[in-house]
Amino acid sequence: MMEYKSSDPVKLSGDGRAVIAVDQRILPEKWEEMTITNAEQAYEAIKTLAVRGAPCIGVFAGYAVYVCAIAHKDEFEFLDSLKKDCELIVSARPTAVNLSWAVKRMLSCVDEKASPDETVQRLKAEAIAIHEEDIAICRAIAEYGLELIKDGSSVITHCNAGALATSRYGTGLGALLLGAERGMSFHAYVDETRPLLQGARLTAYELHNAGVDTTLMCDNMASYIMSTGKINACMVGCDRVAANGDTANKIGTSGLAVMAKHYGVPFYVFCPSSTIDLNCKSGKDIVIEQRPSEEITTLYYSRQIAPKGIKCLNPAFDVTPSGLITAIVTEKGILYPPYDMTKFIG
Amino acid sequence: MMEYKSSDPVKLSGDGRAVIAVDQRILPEKWEEMTITNAEQAYEAIKTLAVRGAPCIGVFAGYAVYVCAIAHKDEFEFLDSLKKDCELIVSARPTAVNLSWAVKRMLSCVDEKASPDETVQRLKAEAIAIHEEDIAICRAIAEYGLELIKDGSSVITHCNAGALATSRYGTGLGALLLGAERGMSFHAYVDETRPLLQGARLTAYELHNAGVDTTLMCDNMASYIMSTGKINACMVGCDRVAANGDTANKIGTSGLAVMAKHYGVPFYVFCPSSTIDLNCKSGKDIVIEQRPSEEITTLYYSRQIAPKGIKCLNPAFDVTPSGLITAIVTEKGILYPPYDMTKFIG
Repeated sequence: MMEYKSSDPVKLSGDGRAVIAVDQRILPEKWEEMTITNAEQAYEAIKTLAVRGAPCIGVFAGYAVYVCAIAHKDEFEFLDSLKKDCELIVSARPTAVNLSWAVKRMLSCVDEKASPDETVQRLKAEAIAIHEEDIAICRAIAEYGLELIKDGSSVITHCNAGALATSRYGTGLGALLLGAERGMSFHAYVDETRPLLQGARLTAYELHNAGVDTTLMCDNMASYIMSTGKINACMVGCDRVAANGDTANKIGTSGLAVMAKHYGVPFYVFCPSSTIDLNCKSGKDIVIEQRPSEEITTLYYSRQIAPKGIKCLNPAFDVTPSGLITAIVTEKGILYPPYDMTKFIG
Repeated sequence: MMEYKSSDPVKLSGDGRAVIAVDQRILPEKWEEMTITNAEQAYEAIKTLAVRGAPCIGVFAGYAVYVCAIAHKDEFEFLDSLKKDCELIVSARPTAVNLSWAVKRMLSCVDEKASPDETVQRLKAEAIAIHEEDIAICRAIAEYGLELIKDGSSVITHCNAGALATSRYGTGLGALLLGAERGMSFHAYVDETRPLLQGARLTAYELHNAGVDTTLMCDNMASYIMSTGKINACMVGCDRVAANGDTANKIGTSGLAVMAKHYGVPFYVFCPSSTIDLNCKSGKDIVIEQRPSEEITTLYYSRQIAPKGIKCLNPAFDVTPSGLITAIVTEKGILYPPYDMTKFIG
């Protein structure tokens, strides 16, 4: 296993002309960085989950829009080309609102009367601002998270909502990582998160290296460990929050929430307020991405583990109804039911 | 993928001196048969899950005790040697009661005054009787199962409770397999069942080949598909039933039951009555086997998918409290709450 790197998963290259992103598909085996200089590469990186985690995708998309702009020299085609790039990047994944949010924010700072050079400089500043804000937001979310658990708590987490999914402390893992830094001791039970194993590969790697007492388990073991009475809280990130507090997150989150409710375990959702989408009234308005069968039928793209040609269900996300959520935490504070997400907007 | 074989997973060799069992670890890639002639081999086969499925383990253990007896020639040491063999075989796995039930039944037909040759003949007849009874029992369970669903129903199943786990129709899959034979059409959603993927490798293989419309999914997708309202029932097997109706089954079953209750989906448990253990008052008395971390950290014993040295939780089973179970079905009928398992005994 690679030595743990706590550097951000996404950053600008030294010369400021490319996005450097760690390829999260091959962690924890190797820490390998990709160099992205155009929209096709950015689309591929998001689509294949080389870059993943809702807030991280937002930061990446900001930088990607900026480096795409550098490449367009023709003054007359500049804006059209840039908009086409943005459309391609946004189309990579439908569920996480942070992607379209970041691209929209980048486009909104384009002044049609400005020269391409001026626009490029503005885009660079805006991308850096998105990144720096994300660092501050994650820090604030982590502080709020620490209000919800005690030293010694045992926490279940699902998928990866740590530094690799965001900037620095993460969202769902923020309390555990910040607490560990302060010498608190937690026990994390990490859902491996099939099919792509972000929990096993990324969360277990991050928490273990941060000194958190970490136990990996299969997703279907959460009910068993909750039934022992050992679990104090569930803490997860999320990809989109509807106006009524329904949240979309990695497939399996809603099942974990149902079990938490059954066993009386508090279920906390963490996200930057940019994840709230008031255009979605409820979870029914959230599009769930369906992904290829091969992610299930072959084990992480290697050995065949199911009959060839078998039909598969492979939704990448599911919706956790607000009624199953104990609190939603953003950088602006902790919100309890009944949820009115407008309190976190503006 | 191998052509599907519907022959029993366990049988006697042509000369009647060995147990022949398909190695279920390598299905669906290969149909490979093992030849077992002593207690050490039988222990290994059960321990490593080459032979698995509670009723199938019972049938296998019956034949194994018989072939062990053949090997002991010394009249004075015959009974001691046979009892030692039985102890070793019973120690292979703690949770499924069928293992100790079958071995106990085999030993109970030993007459200490009889010659080894006579005893060997009795043991052979008893092993064959256990096997033939299992075939009849599975058939009866399947008939009862068909009373619980309609043509066109969609059913979630977990782990493998089909022909490979039993004899012929299986327990949890009995209704689907028998119904398919009669031209009924069902839609089966199959939990892949981490860590050892019995659902993906065995259940998907069996149902698909039997002509059942089969969709494989990761365990954490059950909540998603239940939330769509498409699922009419959950049907699972089990490894031990306590007197109060608490049932132990493959890890993940209790979580599925919690979700089924939340979404209002009936949850049915199927087993031969030999699975009922009145010595266990409730699920608390059932020992849950804890298995090696490597089953989780490497994908089906191949590629590394989690940090080396990470601690793992790996219970092989969990207990589904009787309050979450809509009905328990054995060859003797369908039992509804409040559960009094003595109704199925004797």
